Amino acid sequence: MDSRASRSTNLAAAGGRMYGLIEDLYPICRSITGDGVRATLRRLQAELPLTVHEVPSGTAVFDWAVPQEWNISDAYVKNAAGERVIDFQRHNLHVVSYSTPVRQRMSLAELRPHLHSLPEQPELIPYRTSYYKETWGFCASHTTLQALPEGEYEVVIDSSLKSGSLTYSELLLQGATDDEVLISCHICHPSLADDNLSGVAVAVELARALSTLKPRFSYRFVFVPGTIGAITWLAQNEPQLGRIKAGLVLTCVGDAGALTYKRSRQGDSSIDRAFAHLLKQSASGRVIEFYPYGYDERQYNSPGINLPVGCLMRSQHGQFPEYHTSADDLAFVRPEALGATFGTILGALRVLEQNHTYVNTSPKCEPQLGKRGLYGLIGGLDLQSSQLALLWVLNLSDGTHSLLEIAERAAMPFDLIAAAAEQLQETGLLVARA
Amino acid sequence: MDSRASRSTNLAAAGGRMYGLIEDLYPICRSITGDGVRATLRRLQAELPLTVHEVPSGTAVFDWAVPQEWNISDAYVKNAAGERVIDFQRHNLHVVSYSTPVRQRMSLAELRPHLHSLPEQPELIPYRTSYYKETWGFCASHTTLQALPEGEYEVVIDSSLKSGSLTYSELLLQGATDDEVLISCHICHPSLADDNLSGVAVAVELARALSTLKPRFSYRFVFVPGTIGAITWLAQNEPQLGRIKAGLVLTCVGDAGALTYKRSRQGDSSIDRAFAHLLKQSASGRVIEFYPYGYDERQYNSPGINLPVGCLMRSQHGQFPEYHTSADDLAFVRPEALGATFGTILGALRVLEQNHTYVNTSPKCEPQLGKRGLYGLIGGLDLQSSQLALLWVLNLSDGTHSLLEIAERAAMPFDLIAAAAEQLQETGLLVARA
Amino acid sequence: MDSRASRSTNLAAAGGRMYGLIEDLYPICRSITGDGVRATLRRLQAELPLTVHEVPSGTAVFDWAVPQEWNISDAYVKNAAGERVIDFQRHNLHVVSYSTPVRQRMSLAELRPHLHSLPEQPELIPYRTSYYKETWGFCASHTTLQALPEGEYEVVIDSSLKSGSLTYSELLLQGATDDEVLISCHICHPSLADDNLSGVAVAVELARALSTLKPRFSYRFVFVPGTIGAITWLAQNEPQLGRIKAGLVLTCVGDAGALTYKRSRQGDSSIDRAFAHLLKQSASGRVIEFYPYGYDERQYNSPGINLPVGCLMRSQHGQFPEYHTSADDLAFVRPEALGATFGTILGALRVLEQNHTYVNTSPKCEPQLGKRGLYGLIGGLDLQSSQLALLWVLNLSDGTHSLLEIAERAAMPFDLIAAAAEQLQETGLLVARA
Repeated sequence: MDSRASRSTNLAAAGGRMYGLIEDLYPICRSITGDGVRATLRRLQAELPLTVHEVPSGTAVFDWAVPQEWNISDAYVKNAAGERVIDFQRHNLHVVSYSTPVRQRMSLAELRPHLHSLPEQPELIPYRTSYYKETWGFCASHTTLQALPEGEYEVVIDSSLKSGSLTYSELLLQGATDDEVLISCHICHPSLADDNLSGVAVAVELARALSTLKPRFSYRFVFVPGTIGAITWLAQNEPQLGRIKAGLVLTCVGDAGALTYKRSRQGDSSIDRAFAHLLKQSASGRVIEFYPYGYDERQYNSPGINLPVGCLMRSQHGQFPEYHTSADDLAFVRPEALGATFGTILGALRVLEQNHTYVNTSPKCEPQLGKRGLYGLIGGLDLQSSQLALLWVLNLSDGTHSLLEIAERAAMPFDLIAAAAEQLQETGLLVARA
Repeated sequence: MDSRASRSTNLAAAGGRMYGLIEDLYPICRSITGDGVRATLRRLQAELPLTVHEVPSGTAVFDWAVPQEWNISDAYVKNAAGERVIDFQRHNLHVVSYSTPVRQRMSLAELRPHLHSLPEQPELIPYRTSYYKETWGFCASHTTLQALPEGEYEVVIDSSLKSGSLTYSELLLQGATDDEVLISCHICHPSLADDNLSGVAVAVELARALSTLKPRFSYRFVFVPGTIGAITWLAQNEPQLGRIKAGLVLTCVGDAGALTYKRSRQGDSSIDRAFAHLLKQSASGRVIEFYPYGYDERQYNSPGINLPVGCLMRSQHGQFPEYHTSADDLAFVRPEALGATFGTILGALRVLEQNHTYVNTSPKCEPQLGKRGLYGLIGGLDLQSSQLALLWVLNLSDGTHSLLEIAERAAMPFDLIAAAAEQLQETGLLVARA
Repeated sequence: MDSRASRSTNLAAAGGRMYGLIEDLYPICRSITGDGVRATLRRLQAELPLTVHEVPSGTAVFDWAVPQEWNISDAYVKNAAGERVIDFQRHNLHVVSYSTPVRQRMSLAELRPHLHSLPEQPELIPYRTSYYKETWGFCASHTTLQALPEGEYEVVIDSSLKSGSLTYSELLLQGATDDEVLISCHICHPSLADDNLSGVAVAVELARALSTLKPRFSYRFVFVPGTIGAITWLAQNEPQLGRIKAGLVLTCVGDAGALTYKRSRQGDSSIDRAFAHLLKQSASGRVIEFYPYGYDERQYNSPGINLPVGCLMRSQHGQFPEYHTSADDLAFVRPEALGATFGTILGALRVLEQNHTYVNTSPKCEPQLGKRGLYGLIGGLDLQSSQLALLWVLNLSDGTHSLLEIAERAAMPFDLIAAAAEQLQETGLLVARA
């Protein structure tokens, strides 16, 4: 992968591209099924050769069934004067997702149980869904709802809920081996930028970057509706899951918060160790333990699936005030944050790709480095640190320590240890373990 | 066992009963053998169907022999005026336990080597014994001894030390299995309330509570003289010791100090883990490592016995100023402290009883909780924590994690994890490991 | 080994002897080969029956070859007035070690690239070598170099670099078994006191002390030129290396800094545990992890050699301002520091010698200590701590815990645990594990 020198320029360019994609996707009204997902995937197909799958309503997927398909064309609440006081055309969040159709006049008192707001954040529109209980509702700012006078209202939700299909998409970038790395993100949220257009955009950018390389692993990208989409994908791909050696769920990765890596259920898998190393080395971000709540890592880490799939976030879902509100908008995500997320993931993938175990071919005492010209600089290190990197690799390359383990024990960045290993390989002092 | 709602009422009632029993037992002059122990056990037989054993003096018990039996009817030091300046009738502690008989007139200088006091706690009478060295002595407050004028004194200890027997008692509450939990307390201390009438009273209350249940484990209560009594009991029951899966020595459990649980020599046995969990969850009390000193846990944890027996205390023996003095009296122990000790032990026994390992019957992805009505509240938890408890149990119930391990990993109280497991069992999502 | 009472006197006497030896060795100009090493070893032979080995130049030793032999008789830079402005006769450090011969007049500009100083420590002469690149040079204080006027200088290094041999020395003190403890120090540095005449002097004192005892282990002392000497010794002794059960490199052990023990690559070998215990018990000094840099522990801990050899230092090489300068002189090392280093090493060797695993012959319940007279004091302990030491040894002597493990768990000094074990052995309560 590319050299450190050109990386920051590349990250800035990538950040701009990702932000642009988020701008395009933001207006679309998505849900766990329906045309919003299809429109989203069509836009992604302009970037990547995605395969799109349609799974019919009612299909059994483990303990679940694919639900009916939901679509919506318009929705509003009109006051006595015929003005739209709540208008779906103005913001997708105004309608509870999966609302059943309604066309009715009613008093404010009858309407009230169907109105949702956030009294403690009175200017924001909340995001609400009702996937598995048939009902309908509107969301609006608390200020708007407080201002509604008594009287009769015209309430219209022009939606449909009927047999159709669930739509998801995937892309496989074949590498040198069939061992796979899974990148998964949910595509079901309407007009929420960090959650999860940020994840979608970073995944697209990763696929673009990897498609120009010939990596060791094959990389599988899945763009799925949250929960039911991941369950559907797992149910339909169960026989091949054994290929997945590492995976990552991307969620809320575009805001200004520090990176948060949530370990897989296995807790110490290769991707867990890669992110733990990078976040420790950069002294930014934090690693948290697995817990069975969150996004689709819940499914990947269920006991009968148990894949080594972690979750990368910036601000942690559910723990920032903009979460699941209209404040999670285009101003809440930033190109630089997207770029930095992307760069960190590339670093983690470099660890996965390059984390081999080697054998020192001259293991009795130190080999004479000088006569092999091994007194140069490595990366941005000074001479003594460069020497130390070489010595660490030589000392621990007895066939039982991987480069990442060496980097951890040396408390040095993996990239530099890998560069030292490369120099040593060139001189024949290091060979891959048989 | 009973619900949380009724527990605090029950604990208060239990605290009162235990304190009343201590009041009854306090005046009796006990030692490691003799009629004081017998009188004590007769009082306990009014509460529980105890079996009483007499083991003849001289019986070999491992490296030891049962000692001669000691009894005492009166003892005093009279001054020249014939007044009792030290009087066994006023306090049992005035005579060194196991004192040989004496009836003699002597000068204060001759008497001095036989007088014991605590110069740094001048108003308190110390507690002294001389079990394995034949001698005699008196204990009194330092103030009393300082005030004795020169002159001749009449010194009388009307005791006997002769072949007899050592008395101990036990009670077995048969449970569903023959696996046993051992509760042991020493009954040899005269007129010391915390050490160890508190342990005796809590053991009696536990036996009363358990006798109304049909627990999984069988519960064996032993009331023995310290050291030699435990050694005697172990020597006489060696073939059956393999049944003991957990045990607890109760010592100094009635004072106002925080709970202290001392681990067994094994260090991580089921009872060690149960108490560590409870004390961490309640954020009160502390867990200390095993050390080969203390009370009868020394014997249970000797290398050739090595039973998983911990020790529960409040203030740690030997480390509080009232320890082994006349200040360890009826004012030093409190009904509330006794009740709280009792409640914590019941909690630990609930862990032992309910700590099963289960298997999630729908382990591939999360099961759909909503269609099974699993969106209720558990214990005093809010909705999100209740959900989280269910999800933790489902996620880790792969046949390798016990409920206690799940509670530890979830950082939630065992009782709530057990309640979640019960709900899941009712829906069939969870079954006991085959 | 000797009792605690007489130890401090012995340490003071030893400190004086070691300092005297350093004074004798300081003026000699040593390098990795040549007559300086021979003169040094002759002086040591006055103390110990050392065997001296000569290994011819060109001999292959693993990845290296023994270099040509270097000797020097004089060297100077004379100014136009014929005065020696840099004079090897005044300080051995003035010439870069292994300088090729030179005899030439040249301008200051031509001379400059061959002059080395320390601008940030302008009064000190640096220590420089050029073993594996043929060149020549002078070292002087920055002040001296700054004062040199332009003009012509006469530059003379009367050295020779030709086929000869590398000289090293060893001594084996045969113990009761053929299992060996290795003590290694480098002898190649000229006129540097802490690095490493201190190591040489402590090694000599250890050999003297051990030669009067009949230890369990055999002790092998090696006095070798740094790096190439250790590599040569290892190459020539490879078949016997399996005998080495523990080892220690001694470096910079005479200054006033606290002790630093660097673990072996194995990390938890017997000598690692012994030093970790002693430094923790004394609450002085510190233990650091292995890293593949430093002195000859680099060779002993290379992956194909992998001996359990730690490194003992006071100030850590490379990390104190006097390191590799003329300030590492006779004033920088102190008799008391040498004595304390020596005493700590003796303590560690006592642990190695006495760290057996025992079996309690009366493991069921505690044995009766009183009837065996085991109520005495141990070392400087009070009665309760003495009892506790006995009880810890009895409790953990089940054939799986060594005395050092018992000392660690009891948080008591090894010497006291060993003394308790000795008392118990005398009564038959403890026997060595079969």
